[in-house]
Order: sequence, then C-alpha cells, then structure tokens
Amino acid sequence: MILILITNLLILSAVVYGAPKKKTYSELKSCDLGNLAEEIASYDTVVKDIIDYAVTGPFKGKTYDELAKFVDKFGARPSGSQVLEDSIDYMIELTREEDINDIVTEEVKVPHWSRGEEKLTMLEPRVKNIAILGLGMSVPTPPEGITAEVIIIRNFTELENIEEDTIKGKIVLYDPVFTTYGKTVKYRSQGATKAAAKGAVASLVRSIAPFSINSPHTGMQTYGKNVTKIPTAAITLEDADLIRRIITRGEKVILKLEMTSTYDDKISRNTIIDLKGRDRPDSLVIVSGHIDSWDVGQGAMDDGGGLFISWAAPVILKRLSLRPKRTIRSIFWTAEELGLVGAKAYEEQHRNDSYNINFIMESDEGTFAPLGLAVAGNQEARCIIAEILKLFESISASTLIEDDSPGSDITLITSIGVPGASLYNENSEYFWYHHTEGDTMNVLDEHELDLGTAFWTAVAYIIADISVDIPR
Amino acid sequence: MILILITNLLILSAVVYGAPKKKTYSELKSCDLGNLAEEIASYDTVVKDIIDYAVTGPFKGKTYDELAKFVDKFGARPSGSQVLEDSIDYMIELTREEDINDIVTEEVKVPHWSRGEEKLTMLEPRVKNIAILGLGMSVPTPPEGITAEVIIIRNFTELENIEEDTIKGKIVLYDPVFTTYGKTVKYRSQGATKAAAKGAVASLVRSIAPFSINSPHTGMQTYGKNVTKIPTAAITLEDADLIRRIITRGEKVILKLEMTSTYDDKISRNTIIDLKGRDRPDSLVIVSGHIDSWDVGQGAMDDGGGLFISWAAPVILKRLSLRPKRTIRSIFWTAEELGLVGAKAYEEQHRNDSYNINFIMESDEGTFAPLGLAVAGNQEARCIIAEILKLFESISASTLIEDDSPGSDITLITSIGVPGASLYNENSEYFWYHHTEGDTMNVLDEHELDLGTAFWTAVAYIIADISVDIPR
Repeated sequence: MILILITNLLILSAVVYGAPKKKTYSELKSCDLGNLAEEIASYDTVVKDIIDYAVTGPFKGKTYDELAKFVDKFGARPSGSQVLEDSIDYMIELTREEDINDIVTEEVKVPHWSRGEEKLTMLEPRVKNIAILGLGMSVPTPPEGITAEVIIIRNFTELENIEEDTIKGKIVLYDPVFTTYGKTVKYRSQGATKAAAKGAVASLVRSIAPFSINSPHTGMQTYGKNVTKIPTAAITLEDADLIRRIITRGEKVILKLEMTSTYDDKISRNTIIDLKGRDRPDSLVIVSGHIDSWDVGQGAMDDGGGLFISWAAPVILKRLSLRPKRTIRSIFWTAEELGLVGAKAYEEQHRNDSYNINFIMESDEGTFAPLGLAVAGNQEARCIIAEILKLFESISASTLIEDDSPGSDITLITSIGVPGASLYNENSEYFWYHHTEGDTMNVLDEHELDLGTAFWTAVAYIIADISVDIPR
Repeated sequence: MILILITNLLILSAVVYGAPKKKTYSELKSCDLGNLAEEIASYDTVVKDIIDYAVTGPFKGKTYDELAKFVDKFGARPSGSQVLEDSIDYMIELTREEDINDIVTEEVKVPHWSRGEEKLTMLEPRVKNIAILGLGMSVPTPPEGITAEVIIIRNFTELENIEEDTIKGKIVLYDPVFTTYGKTVKYRSQGATKAAAKGAVASLVRSIAPFSINSPHTGMQTYGKNVTKIPTAAITLEDADLIRRIITRGEKVILKLEMTSTYDDKISRNTIIDLKGRDRPDSLVIVSGHIDSWDVGQGAMDDGGGLFISWAAPVILKRLSLRPKRTIRSIFWTAEELGLVGAKAYEEQHRNDSYNINFIMESDEGTFAPLGLAVAGNQEARCIIAEILKLFESISASTLIEDDSPGSDITLITSIGVPGASLYNENSEYFWYHHTEGDTMNVLDEHELDLGTAFWTAVAYIIADISVDIPR
C-alpha cells in the first residue's frame, strides 16, 4: 500500500478551457510514494528512448506530415458527412500499415447538420455585409430572410431585466466581454433559447474569442424544450463592436439575416485501436482525440493534433517493441462537436465491460508545446501522475494541473470516478482559431507536435506498465 | 548660420514599410546647433501643454471617437466612389465646426475600379472554396471563369528560368516568403504582368503579410504595356501553403477563378486646410494622411488614423490659440491606394507655387504608439529634427530614423529635395490587417491615438514656429 500524506492540497474546481491555476509536483506536499517513486524513476531510459525516437529520430516530423496529408486530403470533417466516414477509413488503413490490426469501429447515430447559404446584411444606418457563421443545429430563416432591429445585450441578467415588449420581434445580439471560453460560451450555446423565450425572432452572438481578423467562430448550440427555435449565428468581434458603437450613439441598427441549413441523422463510428497488454490486457490506458471537426477550416488544431498524437502512441510503442503490462487503447471519437455524441455512445456501450479503464487521456485543447497534464482523480492518483511527470523535465512538460473535469469527451467517464487527464499545453492562442476558417496546419508547429507525440506516448506507456493501478 | 559637425553618419537607404535601423539623436555625433538648441528647448512648455490637452485634457479620446464616428458612418472609401466624396464633405464640415474656414479642395481625376463577385474554387484534388480578394485594376474573368492547373513560383528568378511551355495556359501562384513588405510587394504589384508575358491565363499571389486568420490582402497592381491583361487576385497564407503542400506531394491542383469588376474614371478631391502662419504664411509645414481606403474593412488603420491625427493638428493649435510663424497645412490626399493619384496631382499643381514647403509630414504606416519620425533631408535638417524630438522623451517618441524615402504620398515631394518625415510608430502588427476586412477600429487604441495626435501637433507646431527654415 502506498502511504500518502497530503496537506493543504486544494482541489481546484474545473476550469474548462480557461487558464487553470498551475500546481507543480513540488507543491503537492508529502506525496510519499515509497518504493513506487523508485519504480517510476526507473522509466527514465524508456522516456529518453521515446523522446529521441519521436523528436530527433525516425519519427521526427512525422506527426506533422501525416496530419497535413490527412487534413489536406479531407479538409473539414463534419458530423454525419461522408468525408468524415472516409477519413475514418483512411485512419484505419494508416494504422494497419503499421501492422497494428486490433482495430474495431463501433457505430453511433450522429446528427448531420449541414450549413447552406448564409448572409447577414446591415440595412440601417448603412448597407454593409457582415461576416457570419451559423451556429450548430440552427434552423434556417424563411426564404425571404428575417429583417429586424437589433437589441444588444451584454449578459443574461441584462436580458432577464428587460421588458418582453422591448425584445419582441427583434434580433438579440449577445455581446459578452470575453474572459475565458468556459465563462462566455453559454451565450453561444444557450443564447437562442433565452432570446426566443423573450420573443426575439433571431439571435446573434459576438464570437467567443479574444482576437479576430474579421473571423466569425461557429460552435454548438442547443434549443431548449417548448421554446420557438429561432435562427442563430456568430458575428465577428469587429462587427459586434461596430453595432454597439452605432447603438450607443442613439442610432437604430436594422439587419437582414438569411440562412439555410438541413438536418438529418446519420451513422458514424468511434474507432478503437488496441495494443494489447502483455500481463493484464483487460486493464486499459486510453489515449484519445476526436476525428470529426467543424465544417470550416481543416480541423487541424481541433482536433487533428489530438487525433494524431493519439494515433502515434500505439504506433511508436509497436515500432519500439514496447509492450506494456496493460492495454494501450487509442480512441478516435466521432461527433464530438455536435455534443460529445461518440463519447456518450462509448460510455453507454462499455459501461458494464469486463474491460476496466485504469486511466483515460484526451487531447482536445491544442497540441502546442506540451507542458504536462490536467488531471482528474483523487490525491493518491495525482501523486502518482505527478511523479511520472517528473520524468519530462527535459522537455519542460512536468506540470500537473488539478482539474476535476479535464477535457471534453472524457468528462463523461471521469465524472463517474475514473481517473484521467487532458493534455496541458501552451495553448494561449487556441481561441484565436477555434471553430474558424483559420483552423489549418498553419496554426501548428512540427517540433511542438513531435514533443506532444513523445510526451503522450511515454506517459501512456508508463501508466500502462507500472506495478500499481491508478487509485480511484 | 548653424554649425554642423557630423561624423560617421550613415545615410541609410529607404526601407519602405520595413524594419528600419533606428538612429537616436545621441548617435548623431556632434550636431552643434549653437543657439538653436536652446531655442528648441524653450518649446518644452508648449509641448507639455499640447500633450496635456490631447492625452489627459479636453481632447482625450477625441481622436479615437471622431475616427470611429467617421469610419462607422462611411465604412470603406474606395477611390472614385460616391462614399469617398461624401466622406470628404464630412471632413470639411467637421473642420468648419472648429471655426477653421481656410479650406480648399482641388479636383483630381482618379481611377474608379469596382470589385464585383469573386470566387475561387479548387476542383482537384478535391473541391474547396478558397478565399480571395482581387487585386486593384484586375480585369474580370470571362463569365464562365478560368479553369486551369496551378504552377507555384517562389520568386521572379524561378519564373524566368522556367520554359514558357510549362507556364502557358496555367494559373501562376506566387508564393514568396514574407520578409518585409518592401521586399515582397513586387509579387503583388508586378506578378500578373510577368506571368502573362510567359503565357499564364491568370495569376494569384500569397497575401503580402506575415500573419493570417484566413485573411486575404488586396492591393494595387499595374499591368505592363504590350502584355495581355490577365485576372489577378490574392489568396491567404493558409491556402498558399495548402496548395504548395499538395503540389509538393506530386498532385495536380486545378482551380476555377471567377471574377467580375468594372472600371472608369471619376473626379475626386484633395482637401487642403490651412492654419495661416502669423509671420510667414507663405512657408508651409504640411501634415497629411490619405482619406481614401481599400474597399474592404473600414480603412480605420489605413489611413483613418493618419487622416485624423493630421486633422487634429490644426484643430488643437486653433483651440489652444497657438498660431505659429509659418502656415500649418493639413492635407487629406485622395486616391492614394490606386497609385498616389492625389499626391501626384498636388505636386504637379503646386510645383511653381509661391507657397514654399518648409517641411512635409505624413502618417500612413499606422497610428500605434508614436516612437518618433523617419526623416528625409540633409544632415543639418536631421540634426534640427532630432533636437526637436528630444522634447518628446516623456512619451517615448524621441527616435529619429534616417530614411531617404519615408512615407508614401510625400515621397513625390521629398524626392525633389524637400525635407520631410513619416510617423515612426510601434507598427509591428500593421501588416496583419493591411488591406483586409480586418482593418477596423479594433486595430486601434484610444490612448495611442491620443499620443499620436499630441506628437504630430506639437512637432508640426515647433517646426512651423522656430526661427530657422529646415535646411535642404
């Protein structure tokens, strides 16, 4: 049994996509792991081997190159599209070329929301074309569009306090000040519903982003029950500011919104690749990312990078003949963007599995320079992970962030007590590109991807190979 | 007479929009200005008064607010458009409201190139919409568009060395590595002509910019004589990289380009506002910026900022009852973007004037935090300007850059020996937004504009008021 003495250890609440407070190992007081610390330290050679292989050896540049080939070939891979299914087939083939054949796919019913023509025109005080991206699942406008005055709202409290008559028949524009994604994304995800409840005919949202070059950011939104579904779209920071300035000067802004879209259900697939463990194949260490993307840009950053470092982990271990005690499972989630649909299906399907998830990892917040892990789990679990992270000081990836709800897809599984982690990386510019036409290979860096691949592979290997399970 | 002893003073060649080598006054060795140094130093109180008035006093925030009202009302102001003429009338009225009535306009024949529908589609190896902006004066494509294979070219030397047969019938894509604007803009301005000479059917250029969020940058290009005029447009950094990667992998890229545009001549106007000098009204100190813009974005940065600090200079001097010895002339150039058309007309019209330009200033490279001036003139002239700049240490705007060809519009006048200067400012991100939909008020900062206004006003005042003319 491992002796754990932790004092003054604050469990920080989840900060989804925010700027979580860092907590490095040295601050986790009195994590006395006994012999396990020595055991973990003994992996220093294998860590070095994996880093060498991925960063300066035969795999150098391969993560970037393979990802570029993939996103250049398929482009955006929206949920329910044929191109997403083709890209899944491609990844299976790419994995088989590495002589990894323990691959299954599991079917999932997914939403297929398809963007049509979209146009927003300011008619008063002057005619101006306004860049938009309709939000996920938005209903279309009538063919003649919706022409109405804009009412600008800073936050939901302001909305609640306004007389219904003031909002009725208008287009609500939410213009929240961006602080973190976690704190402002509600104006995108719930805005249409709350505006409709007050009688608005459409809703717009200032893109949930800190920076823009006239770039609208799309994303998911969900209509509430028993409320009229109104069309909803994102506009740029620049145009939100423009409209606010005009209204502040006492002028009316009249907009004409025209949107088309279609919606049906399709069948997609989660992809599951196993590198079977040599002693305990029924115990899983999962690495994962999602293969679908929004329908703009290339989905290179969100989540091509996470997909490819999770693809690379079993590939490198296989190439280096490193077969850990437990099974390394690589999962490519489908339809993450339309509501974690693939992950939900996986959780339901495997709830009563004989397979046991020892630890689950996900990369879906960028694959910039790795810094460490954001870890969900009890103090004992975090102590072990922190000890493992000490082996990554040479690539500056030793930071442990305490986060009770890291990642996106894996939150469904960590919320039921399974320990897990999201890649913590230097992603301060992530929301410059997130869900925009700018999510392309240009955002990513070859060397940073190599570091991410090395880190992801080696961490998963150690967790899958050490003598103890991650406690829960 | 002023005694000037300068040793080791390097006259640096012009670096248009580049990163010019800084030379601060202390490096200008042995600039012995005699009594003039004391005279210049005596302006410290008036400099402080102007800075106080513009930065913390009654004018605080006014440059930003007036500029925002202006660009929000008119938006883009392309050469030859009615909106440009309306915006000129507005500026005249705004100036008259300050009880400044010595205003004339001078008519200029300007090009009126008008962008229509533009679309670029990759047909092979997969269908993808590619963001474009047609370049200034581009001819349209035939109604059915131009469909052809792409040949990618890094530089003109590469183009010259390729067999004509290889280029004939193709679309040339110039993909120069961005170093400075001055060094790479030739691929935008001359690319179509050089590609047509080799038999290309259209030409594209990687946007002349260091950074992008899927943002194409337009700009002027000129067709050479006796060469077929082919349609030409800019694409984004992201798509240029995508096409290069695909071609490098040995695949063909087929594009379909569809562009419409119209062209005719119109009459526009330069606007000239004088604050007459009290002793020598025939001697001019000119402050200037251009009022026209590209047809995308708001033209807030290029050149709304330069326009408004040049508008503010006579306004603040008038408000503070600071009437210098010489005349302060504020000029709002027209049709800069289509080839310095307004400035050329002014130079021709005033070549034999009894008015004498003592010093000419222009701001057309951003109005971010002012750092000093980029100065054209002989060593004696630069010594005097450097001495004046010492008065702006409190706002960190004391740097003198030696530049034989500063600015854009004023180069026509400084090239014939008139001393002049361009605003040197913290514009390292200028080309992120230049000639894009992202050139909006969001690029600008209220306090930085206040500093620019203060600096511009005070520098012009001192040069217009000191006992000596700027030597030439």
